[in-house]
Amino acid sequence: MNAEIDRQLHHRTIRAFTTQEIPATTIDTLVDVARHTATSEFLQAFSVISITDPQLKTAIAQISKQPYVANNGHLFIFIADQHRNAIIGAEMNQPENKVGGANKFLAALADATLAVQNTVVAAESMGLGAVVLGSILNDAQQIIDLLHLPELTFPVLGLAIGYPDQEPQYKPRLPKKFMHFENGYQLPEPIVPQLKAYDAEVHDYYDLREANRRVDTFTNQVKRSLLNVPEKRAQLLTILHQQGFLIEDDH
Amino acid sequence: MNAEIDRQLHHRTIRAFTTQEIPATTIDTLVDVARHTATSEFLQAFSVISITDPQLKTAIAQISKQPYVANNGHLFIFIADQHRNAIIGAEMNQPENKVGGANKFLAALADATLAVQNTVVAAESMGLGAVVLGSILNDAQQIIDLLHLPELTFPVLGLAIGYPDQEPQYKPRLPKKFMHFENGYQLPEPIVPQLKAYDAEVHDYYDLREANRRVDTFTNQVKRSLLNVPEKRAQLLTILHQQGFLIEDDH
Repeated sequence: MNAEIDRQLHHRTIRAFTTQEIPATTIDTLVDVARHTATSEFLQAFSVISITDPQLKTAIAQISKQPYVANNGHLFIFIADQHRNAIIGAEMNQPENKVGGANKFLAALADATLAVQNTVVAAESMGLGAVVLGSILNDAQQIIDLLHLPELTFPVLGLAIGYPDQEPQYKPRLPKKFMHFENGYQLPEPIVPQLKAYDAEVHDYYDLREANRRVDTFTNQVKRSLLNVPEKRAQLLTILHQQGFLIEDDH
Repeated sequence: MNAEIDRQLHHRTIRAFTTQEIPATTIDTLVDVARHTATSEFLQAFSVISITDPQLKTAIAQISKQPYVANNGHLFIFIADQHRNAIIGAEMNQPENKVGGANKFLAALADATLAVQNTVVAAESMGLGAVVLGSILNDAQQIIDLLHLPELTFPVLGLAIGYPDQEPQYKPRLPKKFMHFENGYQLPEPIVPQLKAYDAEVHDYYDLREANRRVDTFTNQVKRSLLNVPEKRAQLLTILHQQGFLIEDDH
């Protein structure tokens, strides 16, 4: 096992950063890494927005309901972006496009998300910590408004990085037999009884992390989440439509 | 700059692998890296399928229209998976769920895609080459049938890895000013005239790579792709609906 893989196997989300400033050259390098990620059909259908305005950062922290986002660290928002490609076409006298359809929407999501993880790995290799923020979708419309995101763009994930100011425990992951299959999907059911030991491990993890945090097993966490869709997250499909995505198959 | 970032900045897609066998322990390590990727709300909403059956591999190569996929190398298919979580709920006497909605679908896509890139980086750190295969969606329904993918799952990306048997050129990426913005989306328009030097660079890249391959600029490639949705890719939204995803907002 090499050092890179060792780091990946010991990945922990870091949510508290020291006041140590991240050099501009480091941010620049991270954006370069993002740019060099594999991209579907070479369309490079994503963009990155750095949030340097403290007020904007505070607004995004409020949306994500993660107060630490407003604190130290650099905040990126990764955007699925077919707008740029549509504009290129329009400037070349081809105003019509089908980039809002599921096909090109999924490609843009993939481009943006692959780039997020590439950036995470690069940041961690430099001793930085990172937290991926799906929580920006708590109010996607407000993110769209705050960042002036045009049609055919969508905010996919936030990413905050900084010098770690905490040392969280490792979070035990689902045993491999429940997530790695051979030649076809083969979930070994019933699952819950087989997850007893894993549930105990997860329970233990939370137990140790934060005394006043709700302790719960993995299966209980899953069960609770199945019906839990906060009001504004229940509007995501409508917002995707408003951005011009997924309106119809070959749009 | 450290070795990891140097590797990331010199990323190239590798599509030809030698006959050298990848040890089973290496595959195991890569799956472990995938498992340890950040996951939305700790729901771990993805699965990985290893394709070891040569006939199945050939079928997937045909779907992806990339004949090299049938050759040497190990083939993974990454699955957005809310089925497992739905089953956990059902086994715990909660048969209802809202995991088919846009909210949990986007989370599952993110989980699967972040794991793909983490695996790519790990593989490259071990001297392996990788190709991310969005092309499995050329016929998503056939992939679903071949891999017996149940409701609330969806094939996101393929990933083939192996020992490199080629040394492709580096593919020049879009200049940063067109994809990295500060505090809001600010595309410097008009773009096409500003992309002249980049277009020339891309043109040059193709020129050198393969004598009988169509030479084209970036903007021409984008323009051509804007209206190009192969027939079965135009059915992706219908297939997503059939898998139980995106049917309505809070489903």
